Amino acid sequence: MAGPLDLDDLVGRARDGQPRAVARLLSLVEDAHPRVAEIARALTPHTGRARVVGLTGPPGVGKSTSTSALLTALRAEGKRVGVLAIDPSSPFSGGALLGDRIRMTEHATDPGVFIRSMATRGHLGGMALAAPEAVRILDAAGHDHVIVETVGVGQAEVDVAAATDTTVVVLAPGAGDAVQMAKAGILEVADVFIVNKGDRDGAGETARDLRQMLHMGVARDWSPPVLTTTATSRQGVDELWSAVAAHREHLAAGGGLEAKRRQRLRREVESLAAERFRVRVAASFDDAPSLADDLAARRVDPYRAAAILGETATARD
Amino acid sequence: MAGPLDLDDLVGRARDGQPRAVARLLSLVEDAHPRVAEIARALTPHTGRARVVGLTGPPGVGKSTSTSALLTALRAEGKRVGVLAIDPSSPFSGGALLGDRIRMTEHATDPGVFIRSMATRGHLGGMALAAPEAVRILDAAGHDHVIVETVGVGQAEVDVAAATDTTVVVLAPGAGDAVQMAKAGILEVADVFIVNKGDRDGAGETARDLRQMLHMGVARDWSPPVLTTTATSRQGVDELWSAVAAHREHLAAGGGLEAKRRQRLRREVESLAAERFRVRVAASFDDAPSLADDLAARRVDPYRAAAILGETATARD
Repeated sequence: MAGPLDLDDLVGRARDGQPRAVARLLSLVEDAHPRVAEIARALTPHTGRARVVGLTGPPGVGKSTSTSALLTALRAEGKRVGVLAIDPSSPFSGGALLGDRIRMTEHATDPGVFIRSMATRGHLGGMALAAPEAVRILDAAGHDHVIVETVGVGQAEVDVAAATDTTVVVLAPGAGDAVQMAKAGILEVADVFIVNKGDRDGAGETARDLRQMLHMGVARDWSPPVLTTTATSRQGVDELWSAVAAHREHLAAGGGLEAKRRQRLRREVESLAAERFRVRVAASFDDAPSLADDLAARRVDPYRAAAILGETATARD
Repeated sequence: MAGPLDLDDLVGRARDGQPRAVARLLSLVEDAHPRVAEIARALTPHTGRARVVGLTGPPGVGKSTSTSALLTALRAEGKRVGVLAIDPSSPFSGGALLGDRIRMTEHATDPGVFIRSMATRGHLGGMALAAPEAVRILDAAGHDHVIVETVGVGQAEVDVAAATDTTVVVLAPGAGDAVQMAKAGILEVADVFIVNKGDRDGAGETARDLRQMLHMGVARDWSPPVLTTTATSRQGVDELWSAVAAHREHLAAGGGLEAKRRQRLRREVESLAAERFRVRVAASFDDAPSLADDLAARRVDPYRAAAILGETATARD
């Protein structure tokens, strides 16, 4: 589909903000191309400028509509924005069913906006490892803001959304939704809450439930505001953006931004090292068919097998 | 809270099916106790008998009610059943908010049923590593069936639910829900679908959408049936259980059950080895403060740092 990979040229063009080069780099990350480490090396010195916001919440609450409304607000200020919509790898979602990206089409022809839906097929460690590198690409390409939107409400999705400077959790009015979110471990990663579809019945109640639940949790030095928005008519979107900005100022003032980014990098490095090791363990597994039989026959337990293979993999070179 | 840990005694009593011993072992796994490997070694020879079913789906669709209905059906056959309800770690969900476990209370006093809500605080690798060991405990304790229910619809939750013999995906009627599930990567792990709350408007439509979407996906040797249930009145629950049994027979007949379990064990072993390595990398990180500074200042990229620390951790003993 493309010629031989000239990484220097590609990185140079991505840094110039050329969308096709940015898209190509993102594809390489998505596919876990062997040269991803080189891409990281080339781009890293040129990163750290973008403000990174995560958007997460259950399906159907209007995350894409909210992102679209944020885009409109940021574009009015002349900012360049990159959007990463992270989908889990799924043969079903591989392009055909990305229906709600359509809600962002009004921005599709705007050269100041780069939108990319990303699946994580093939990437070891899934999106938790692919997302930070994708953010670096958009950062190095000169976007002032990067918005990371995740699909689904699970631990991994929450982790990805929380690996940003500010995490916005989007909910819709609905009985029990706040409780469900609490159970999904989402409350403590949120820096800003929005109850979207604010024109529907029960929006006020959901916001109230949420505030009550936040009072029950551990005290933090930042109290996440709970806002009500109607993204389709852009109601409350300016307030949302002000809250995101306020959170960022809070972080920057207390040294929290630097600490958060350091913590994020550390977690990424540890995950990358663990995944590299997993590849070696898998190779050791292939070399030890009798261990697989012992496991299946329950003569060896998984912890013992992990210890054995870990030693073999460590000795491997 | 408890005396010194006599693991032999504890394991013996758990194998006798004593609920307090089973609960204690599950707590040790939940807390990532250093002796979890010993527990695994002691229990592994006594596992492999239980039939393991996963239940997953978005919040609020009636997973717990469906589990409860299944329990009633299985208890009528005199089967002993263990239920693991996996919650992500959350200070908010640590006991107080587990409201929907209440829906299973009718089984709480039945000695043939063991129900445990499990968070994964402290466990390296989260529930993906804790869940298989928890299943082994319930299996070794003599439960004929183990039901693993996950909260949330994310990649990790889907992975946990799919690490069972048969995966049931629960949906509720609702516009776009099937599409949202497709995006969440849930369609291809399901062995049986139920559209619960079948007495509501749109149940038939959701089931039809789902069937249509399944036709679009990759062909598999098992076509997941799409059933409509109303768990509150137990309508369709017998059909659900027949479908689960049919899937299991299909697996057993084709040698798929053994293959699936082998694959599952392999993934668990690789993850355990990778997590053990992550601990060593973290220690190496602590010993290299200048590397953290280089990362923060973008003089070193995460891939390079992972390679450096990986080498240090490998040399470590």
